[in-house]
Amino acid sequence: MPVLDLIEKTRDGVPLSREDIDRLVAGIVDNRWPDYQLAAWLMAVVLRGLTDQETFWLTGAMAEMGRPHPALGDVDKHSTGGVGDKTTLVLAPLVAALGLRMAKMSGRGLGHTGGTLDKLESIPGFRVELPIDAIRRQVEQIGVAVVAQSRELAPADRRLYALRDVTGTVNHPALIASSIMSKKLAAGTPNLVLDVKVGNGAFMTELRDANRLARLMVDIGRYYGRRMTVLMTTMQQPLGWAIGNAVEVNEAVGVLRGEGPSDLREEVVRLAAELLHLAKGMPLAEAETEAHQALQSGRAWERFIQWVRWQGGDVAAVEAGLPLGPVTRVWRAETRVTVQSLNTRAIGEVALMLGAGRHRLEDAVNPAVGLHCYLKTGRTYEAGDVLAVVYAMTETAADDAVKKLTAAVTFGEPESVPPLVLGRISTEE
Amino acid sequence: MPVLDLIEKTRDGVPLSREDIDRLVAGIVDNRWPDYQLAAWLMAVVLRGLTDQETFWLTGAMAEMGRPHPALGDVDKHSTGGVGDKTTLVLAPLVAALGLRMAKMSGRGLGHTGGTLDKLESIPGFRVELPIDAIRRQVEQIGVAVVAQSRELAPADRRLYALRDVTGTVNHPALIASSIMSKKLAAGTPNLVLDVKVGNGAFMTELRDANRLARLMVDIGRYYGRRMTVLMTTMQQPLGWAIGNAVEVNEAVGVLRGEGPSDLREEVVRLAAELLHLAKGMPLAEAETEAHQALQSGRAWERFIQWVRWQGGDVAAVEAGLPLGPVTRVWRAETRVTVQSLNTRAIGEVALMLGAGRHRLEDAVNPAVGLHCYLKTGRTYEAGDVLAVVYAMTETAADDAVKKLTAAVTFGEPESVPPLVLGRISTEE
Repeated sequence: MPVLDLIEKTRDGVPLSREDIDRLVAGIVDNRWPDYQLAAWLMAVVLRGLTDQETFWLTGAMAEMGRPHPALGDVDKHSTGGVGDKTTLVLAPLVAALGLRMAKMSGRGLGHTGGTLDKLESIPGFRVELPIDAIRRQVEQIGVAVVAQSRELAPADRRLYALRDVTGTVNHPALIASSIMSKKLAAGTPNLVLDVKVGNGAFMTELRDANRLARLMVDIGRYYGRRMTVLMTTMQQPLGWAIGNAVEVNEAVGVLRGEGPSDLREEVVRLAAELLHLAKGMPLAEAETEAHQALQSGRAWERFIQWVRWQGGDVAAVEAGLPLGPVTRVWRAETRVTVQSLNTRAIGEVALMLGAGRHRLEDAVNPAVGLHCYLKTGRTYEAGDVLAVVYAMTETAADDAVKKLTAAVTFGEPESVPPLVLGRISTEE
Repeated sequence: MPVLDLIEKTRDGVPLSREDIDRLVAGIVDNRWPDYQLAAWLMAVVLRGLTDQETFWLTGAMAEMGRPHPALGDVDKHSTGGVGDKTTLVLAPLVAALGLRMAKMSGRGLGHTGGTLDKLESIPGFRVELPIDAIRRQVEQIGVAVVAQSRELAPADRRLYALRDVTGTVNHPALIASSIMSKKLAAGTPNLVLDVKVGNGAFMTELRDANRLARLMVDIGRYYGRRMTVLMTTMQQPLGWAIGNAVEVNEAVGVLRGEGPSDLREEVVRLAAELLHLAKGMPLAEAETEAHQALQSGRAWERFIQWVRWQGGDVAAVEAGLPLGPVTRVWRAETRVTVQSLNTRAIGEVALMLGAGRHRLEDAVNPAVGLHCYLKTGRTYEAGDVLAVVYAMTETAADDAVKKLTAAVTFGEPESVPPLVLGRISTEE
């Protein structure tokens, strides 16, 4: 039982050496260690923790830092996941328009949060599985590509992640940080912005926990010589209005055309500015102005069109607006109301219930269903104002969705309105 | 994942309900829960603990207390395992001679501690696998039977025990207590004495830990209406002189014939007295006198002969003394020496190294090898006195054994000599 000693060390709070961690990770990759031993070790980590040094080594071993990692782009971005989070769809072409190159590996949605790949695939013809040479050529030519994560990228994380999900060992900073950062390190990109979502629609509900996670990820990035910034952004309400797949693509297109919800626009501009700051050393205020101009001038939108075309997507369909429904239900205010608070997770689950997301990884998603949720904390609506629009497959599903949506809103005077950006940590300061 | 909620509760220190525990154990028995989920739960137990109430329910569920458990005897005994612990070989016929009935399920040896079944099987012809009817008849007729534990007895424990061994989750009082007590409850015997070994040759090295375990086991026994006493006895030195299989049978025979080492005799008498006290309410001092007389009168020895005969063993071979060797090596004191301390575990490992024990459950044991270790803490030996005799297969093995034995002894004046019985806890007081 040559991994038992490592389980016992972590159980007893004895730090693992670098050799210990290399042996642990090597055995995870080549399936030498059985699941039950890894499960026991994971639980020991959750209850006893790892030191920062152990976390650095673990992340590096999972990223296979010994191998060459030729970067496909200059910049990368990751979000810990939230409701209505379509920032990548705007950010990727925006930073390309700003002269940066983003080759992003994305995942699919699970549970109440959506996935970028599912959203992109709601564009007819859009391909997310591309050969590595095609990705490289595309990024060189137009500066942007978003594809499915390679199975070869950080294979230890793939196995541990699946096990964490079924053993109650998902929520520990060292495990979350090493999982996210191993994939980002393996992708090799030198400049990285992380969007850590905080609130009742995110995996992290407390800013204190998010701060701890953010600090740890920045420390890992610094340890391996990456430039990186973490923004902590609110998930006390959905980002933007659209929640679903096609409906989120349409909203992203709106922002790229100078329309759309202001919170989404603001967040994308902040993220783009951070990447410009990291990659080119541009002062943040100036970088924000640049990013705004690239959006308003239509340069980012042009880049989006190129991007969709390069990955096989139907540009005309995007320009016309992707179809939603077939059943549409509008929910209006009956009297004058102010939004006190939102149960963001429950709103995300409305989209899931409509068929926009998946309960299990093997489920299929429906691109056309979803909702526009116009509810924002602190905003007042007059009688007759549209609060939300639901796009469903059936009348019954639409009715259920409005019912669930109603239960997810508390009307009244809010104590405070959450700011969009709650905190920022960077390797550069 | 219908066991995930239970893992999360234990992880978060939320007590499981009785229904939770029944569901957990049912899924262990019918293999519904995969090993990796049980491993995560076990590690959560080790690091977060279980309440006493959870431990009672867990033990009861593992013992399948819902089923009828017809007791085969009046009294039962269990030892947590030590070096030279052959008490069952003397105790079982002794209590039978005292009018009690003991039908004991035993195990095999693993690591540095021996197993009763291995010792009994060093008697030519002795059978430890008997049909349940044969066991019942034998116990009715002669009051004693010792057999291999049934695979049907506490099947949840069988699976958990195997998993604990390879996941670093062996050492937790709730897990140890529920494992031992589930088997004893399932056997159904109303009166039970437990011998918890404490010291450098036992799994428990600290009296504090042993006390905690003993208290928990007595509480479990009381919860399920059993009369039960735990003695904590020293394992700072081997019990008696003989360590091995045939050599231990020969020593047990010696004690049954009024000879042999006094510590073994004293311990057997104490255990027998506790059982008489539990089963018949006899005062302890009187019970000890009775037990002594049964040994000295030869009644226990007669019962031993009957017992061996009933289970197919060669009585003549036992009476002649089972053969040892073939190579015998005598270790003598070169000068006058006093034993300051003994590394009991290392002495147990000498027997293991000679072939008397097994590293893995599938290994075979050699009945004829082992040793007499005459070293006792605080005792003084003159030059030329025999300190130990080794029975080995080869000259080399004998040399190695003496070398290892030498390293396991520290000579000098001891600070104190450990008493045999370190503590006692009973349901009856």
